[in-house]
Amino acid sequence: MTIGDELLIGQIVNTNVAWMGEFVTLHGAEVVGSSTVGDTREGIERYVRLGLEEADVVLLSGGLGPTKDDITKRVLAEFFESEMYFHEDTYERLCKMFASFGREPLPSHKEQCYMPRAATVLTNKRGTAPGMWFEKEGKVVVSMPGVPYEMKYLMEQEVMPGLLKKYTTLPSLYRTILTAGAGESVIADKIAAVTDRLPDNYKVAFLPNLGKVRVRLGVTGLDVEDLRVDLDKRVKEIVAVMPKLVFGYDMETQEGVLGDLLRAKGLTIATAESCTGGYLAHRLTGVSGSSAYYQGGLITYSNALKIKELNVCVETLEVHGAVSEEVVKEMLAGALERFGTDVSVSISGIAGPMGGTEKKPVGTIWLAIGNTNKVETYKLQLGKDRLKNIEYTGNFALNKLRHFVLDNY
Amino acid sequence: MTIGDELLIGQIVNTNVAWMGEFVTLHGAEVVGSSTVGDTREGIERYVRLGLEEADVVLLSGGLGPTKDDITKRVLAEFFESEMYFHEDTYERLCKMFASFGREPLPSHKEQCYMPRAATVLTNKRGTAPGMWFEKEGKVVVSMPGVPYEMKYLMEQEVMPGLLKKYTTLPSLYRTILTAGAGESVIADKIAAVTDRLPDNYKVAFLPNLGKVRVRLGVTGLDVEDLRVDLDKRVKEIVAVMPKLVFGYDMETQEGVLGDLLRAKGLTIATAESCTGGYLAHRLTGVSGSSAYYQGGLITYSNALKIKELNVCVETLEVHGAVSEEVVKEMLAGALERFGTDVSVSISGIAGPMGGTEKKPVGTIWLAIGNTNKVETYKLQLGKDRLKNIEYTGNFALNKLRHFVLDNY
Repeated sequence: MTIGDELLIGQIVNTNVAWMGEFVTLHGAEVVGSSTVGDTREGIERYVRLGLEEADVVLLSGGLGPTKDDITKRVLAEFFESEMYFHEDTYERLCKMFASFGREPLPSHKEQCYMPRAATVLTNKRGTAPGMWFEKEGKVVVSMPGVPYEMKYLMEQEVMPGLLKKYTTLPSLYRTILTAGAGESVIADKIAAVTDRLPDNYKVAFLPNLGKVRVRLGVTGLDVEDLRVDLDKRVKEIVAVMPKLVFGYDMETQEGVLGDLLRAKGLTIATAESCTGGYLAHRLTGVSGSSAYYQGGLITYSNALKIKELNVCVETLEVHGAVSEEVVKEMLAGALERFGTDVSVSISGIAGPMGGTEKKPVGTIWLAIGNTNKVETYKLQLGKDRLKNIEYTGNFALNKLRHFVLDNY
Repeated sequence: MTIGDELLIGQIVNTNVAWMGEFVTLHGAEVVGSSTVGDTREGIERYVRLGLEEADVVLLSGGLGPTKDDITKRVLAEFFESEMYFHEDTYERLCKMFASFGREPLPSHKEQCYMPRAATVLTNKRGTAPGMWFEKEGKVVVSMPGVPYEMKYLMEQEVMPGLLKKYTTLPSLYRTILTAGAGESVIADKIAAVTDRLPDNYKVAFLPNLGKVRVRLGVTGLDVEDLRVDLDKRVKEIVAVMPKLVFGYDMETQEGVLGDLLRAKGLTIATAESCTGGYLAHRLTGVSGSSAYYQGGLITYSNALKIKELNVCVETLEVHGAVSEEVVKEMLAGALERFGTDVSVSISGIAGPMGGTEKKPVGTIWLAIGNTNKVETYKLQLGKDRLKNIEYTGNFALNKLRHFVLDNY
């Protein structure tokens, strides 16, 4: 449960919930739900009550700062029918902390030292507000600050160790298979033979995004080692039915995987972009160490620059138009000559939302990928959303580049 | 309410909730709470019920994909005691959509066309799963897909217009003042004279992000016209104390504002990037119609290309290093000569997290902005996060380009 008006009105994205979800799942807990409420007495009390009906443990983050009026602490004190007392140890810790900056605690910090008697105080070495651990009828409620690194410190050092002492959980393992080049339903269909006969302790989820689909496999059971072996086997079976579609696992990225491939094979690459306007270069150079293989690129947005910089023929532009197979082929040849890299990619299209014609509607995009011996061309027919078209084309290009390198080197 | 195991286990960060929170708040709704549940019948039903106890409207996102087993749809059908029927219009739309790619709907897509009778079907032009609008005892439940751009499309085109027809809220008006070039506390301090004497029906919020700060002013009251007049006055007072920092309002972007300026003045621009690797070009070309002023750019990642393509002197690189004022000046001169544009910008730096030296630590970035008569240079000293450094530098460059155009044309 996360507390704070700023989360409800979308002022900040709730990264604490994602972090806590992943952290407790890895330690064998099952997250049954997550809620966000504003800094109000009613909301907090209501959701703590509901949380305890549904779960064994309710973890709260937020609502403890000096400007938050300590609302969470007061609600919890009432909920656990507990009076407040001045927690000397916390005050001493704060005084020492402030002394080390040559300062003294403010009155608002002194307020933070009042604690409900029912709470076990969890020392927060990363900030001023301590955590609080409550128990009632065998269930646990923990309150932590909302500042991410303070919350993480308490989760790692105090909360999770405490929970693991109190509860025995069944471990869960997860593996995410990353694919590009086919849609969610096609992939679901391809791997159905494997997923249909997964035991009941498995869960499968599909997460599609602009030409990529992540397939997440989760398994829960008694013995971590057995689980790991079985999960590995299932993952291999899934990959075996669609080897070309899988580009990586878990937190890997398309650009990272392609970069590793280029580096391993000692290859260099350059880009020649029109409609994607530098996006593909940005993706490639977002990887630390990409200067080992990425040499550089040209963005030839105008036809004049396509001619001057990439030696595209005036006649080709006149006869076929800038968005054509012929032009991306000439752009590719120009880029290979100019940058002298092993492989290159060229892109020209109508990103939209304006600029389409009847024969070449918005979303028509041509790509060429190749080296001095071999060139592959692709045509995409996408939608009208400019930024989606650019991102989809970037994903597509990274995937086809990966295939090109695998097939030819 | 967001639905999906991937949100609970922290596999993805829940950006939909932040977007929805901001969007409905801007339209005058108050978000009383937000929940996330897994893809389970019990969780979804329980939280829809609770949501309806607390609020007038419950918005659901997620749990509708073809591989999600349509769990949300079935739960809602039962909740609203409604049988399923085959929605011909949706099927026709899907057939047309797939025909345009030369394909046919799969059986799983046909499944998506079954709808609860109680639902008003909301056409989703961005994907396969339609939205559903339910009403019960004067309250509204809307189910949307979890894919962000499909959810946003439905929120903007169908859901919010429908809600605004049904409910009258005490009108709230919001105006967001967009600034670049100063931090949150500097701006708070500068405008304190105005914000300190705002009446009680005003709310101010500061939203900082990588060199930019959005200042949101909200006002609630009886008469929209009175509110508008007063809000306009306050906004003008705020802008008056920091005119150079304000680049736009509300949903405007730095690249959009700069693009409008360039177009209005009939200027052209080119980019020469090293460490930002095409990111600035990507930002500039993300604007529809940017081909009117953006001609093209070079990404010279290697020193060899800086020399060959931008005429940077070997001696300058040897004496000062690639990350230096001298090199970005030569890159700028090279770009202006090569692309023949009115203005240009060059960037060279150490994006990180590796590659720093004692004299030039990670996050050292040089920029040059100018034309053939005048050149301005800037040095940034940023942190170790590669993608943040790239984005911050892009924001900084767009802001300085805006100033350069305003000051010199």
